[in-house]
Amino acid sequence: MSMISLGEALERLRNQCRILVSDKKIKLEDGLGRVLASDIVSAINVPPEDNSAMDGYALRGQDWRGPDHALEISQRIAAGTPPAPLKAGTAARIFTGAEIPVGADTVVMQEKCGADGQSVLIDTVGEPGSNIRPQGQDIRRGTTVLQAGQRLRAQDLGLIASLGVERINVRRRLRVAIASTGEELVEPGDTAGPGQIYNSNRYMLKAMLANWGFAVVDFGVAEDDPGVISKVLTEASCEADVIVTTGGVSVGEEDHVKAVVESLGHIDLWRVAIKPGKPFAFGDVLGAPFLGLPGNPVSAFVTALVIARPYLFDCQGVSHREILPVRQTALFDKKGSPRLEYLRSRSGPEGVEIFDQQSSGVLYSTCWGDGMVVQQAGEDISRGDSVDVVPYMLFN
Amino acid sequence: MSMISLGEALERLRNQCRILVSDKKIKLEDGLGRVLASDIVSAINVPPEDNSAMDGYALRGQDWRGPDHALEISQRIAAGTPPAPLKAGTAARIFTGAEIPVGADTVVMQEKCGADGQSVLIDTVGEPGSNIRPQGQDIRRGTTVLQAGQRLRAQDLGLIASLGVERINVRRRLRVAIASTGEELVEPGDTAGPGQIYNSNRYMLKAMLANWGFAVVDFGVAEDDPGVISKVLTEASCEADVIVTTGGVSVGEEDHVKAVVESLGHIDLWRVAIKPGKPFAFGDVLGAPFLGLPGNPVSAFVTALVIARPYLFDCQGVSHREILPVRQTALFDKKGSPRLEYLRSRSGPEGVEIFDQQSSGVLYSTCWGDGMVVQQAGEDISRGDSVDVVPYMLFN
Repeated sequence: MSMISLGEALERLRNQCRILVSDKKIKLEDGLGRVLASDIVSAINVPPEDNSAMDGYALRGQDWRGPDHALEISQRIAAGTPPAPLKAGTAARIFTGAEIPVGADTVVMQEKCGADGQSVLIDTVGEPGSNIRPQGQDIRRGTTVLQAGQRLRAQDLGLIASLGVERINVRRRLRVAIASTGEELVEPGDTAGPGQIYNSNRYMLKAMLANWGFAVVDFGVAEDDPGVISKVLTEASCEADVIVTTGGVSVGEEDHVKAVVESLGHIDLWRVAIKPGKPFAFGDVLGAPFLGLPGNPVSAFVTALVIARPYLFDCQGVSHREILPVRQTALFDKKGSPRLEYLRSRSGPEGVEIFDQQSSGVLYSTCWGDGMVVQQAGEDISRGDSVDVVPYMLFN
Repeated sequence: MSMISLGEALERLRNQCRILVSDKKIKLEDGLGRVLASDIVSAINVPPEDNSAMDGYALRGQDWRGPDHALEISQRIAAGTPPAPLKAGTAARIFTGAEIPVGADTVVMQEKCGADGQSVLIDTVGEPGSNIRPQGQDIRRGTTVLQAGQRLRAQDLGLIASLGVERINVRRRLRVAIASTGEELVEPGDTAGPGQIYNSNRYMLKAMLANWGFAVVDFGVAEDDPGVISKVLTEASCEADVIVTTGGVSVGEEDHVKAVVESLGHIDLWRVAIKPGKPFAFGDVLGAPFLGLPGNPVSAFVTALVIARPYLFDCQGVSHREILPVRQTALFDKKGSPRLEYLRSRSGPEGVEIFDQQSSGVLYSTCWGDGMVVQQAGEDISRGDSVDVVPYMLFN
């Protein structure tokens, strides 16, 4: 079991993944965070017809004879009201967004007009097309506006709505089973006896997976017994598309997960050269992909973000890109280590500082701040250096 | 109605807001995205007792007589198993996370030991305390680990779980009523007649508000009639804590919202010096705060992000901070304008580019990319300049 780089781990996972979910139609209003299974192609022009960019008067430019020549106001066109063709030699009162009547080629903003209700005096008239937004200017019929694989954001739903689409084709939510192992784990609300600790990974992972749009199937804590673990993993392989466990895959004698997964499928233990987070297992249980995260909560958190997330997104069919770190000024000194390090950090207008107990296994280090400094293997960081930071928000 | 800066608009809103929601107890597992109403203070030490940082052997350092002196293995302590006091002159097999037995003061990692099951030979022993994580090292009983006002993230739930807490005190979700006005609006799925457009703001705003953790009360589209608008706003003021509308607050003759709000409470129209997004209304309807966003979808999107969001977070009792722009290299040239501009942008490893139709009212400009370049009033941007970018993800 040699050490591999994060890049190699991600590459191996990428090569072994495929989209595990089918498609379904849902209502647009249920679409937030869902993943498009088909492109969205506009069936309409936006705007659908030439319309007015201003409140003012629509006319045929050549009908204007000068600032003293009054034009009869022959109609009034509000947004949403279909106009009549423009009577020759007249002007139409028109409002922003309203359709330009046939026969008009120009809109003059109201500030340049004087009107008495019956007729209007117009100071000056622009070129044909002035203050008119032409049909299809923004989106032409047949344009692909969103592609399959897009995780839908609020503005994407707005865009789809603006094209008149009310049902969309999305990927079924990826079902992810989670289970923890560890005799020492107690549920919050119970009393922790001597040597016992509260199960934090379960709450954290459920929330991370839900946040990413997956359907979580929670198997709780499996007793550290090969028979029990085997039963849980078998059930999980039936009920979920992917299985994620925490704990049980290090080299300790009490870890039975490895042997069980091996008996039901296969498992590879990787030592990924990142800190926190070294031990990581990948394999399958009766055909269902299996990800074994470390038991240490901070390691589980970091490996879930940087290793599990991109893999699960691939299984869900999300076309995601690598997260782009932002550059900030270091407010700390830190020697590099042989492994890539994710230093839990907090950013402010002056720069980025790091939590002073980076070795700690408690989640407090991840809650204290809002992101992580990415320190490359062997890279020494000095106060004032420009460093790479990944805000947690970017992993949402 | 003079022009005010974004900063002044935010300041005015901040001065008029207060937390509008009461508290309630919920289960920790339902806590993602909820807002803490009370501090979380640890009732326990983490770790609860001294425990082992390694798989190895625990002993009293002074019992070791050299590498050839075998020590009896008197017990085996797994994580989660309460140990017996250590028999004098012996060693205990111990695993990572397991409690240190009374009488031991040192753990030696297994790689430095040779054992035959009955007894162990130990190469060398460290100082007292070696490989032991002392009680309370990570979190001391009585420490405040999360403060009221925190919007709970996955890691926060994990941290709270790790302290044994299963029910938390959060703020009730802020109820936000939304309504649009505009004769020209048609729902997706229906057929848009001449001069009509599909209602996109409704879908977009509902998703934004839901994403921010609010309970949305949807009043759909109100007919552009004073009686109807009055009825809708009155109902909204009863059912929601805050009312948000889109459209109907510009100076056009067809906009009745302003007069109606004035008759039911008060309204101030602001021209906020940002682009897109100038017109913005703030007031109250029968005591419920009222925010009037522009009807143009891109303006509604931007004002929702930069003006409505911080105000609503204040009403919800979220202790949020200003969003910190990230610095990136401009891949474009753009003259400054008299107003602060939010240029819809897309970031890549090389820098940030902007959508070429910044004037467009269609949401496509906001879907095309992943954030906005913040261009200060009067600031000219040239290719290669370092500019401020706010990724949309940071507004989640």
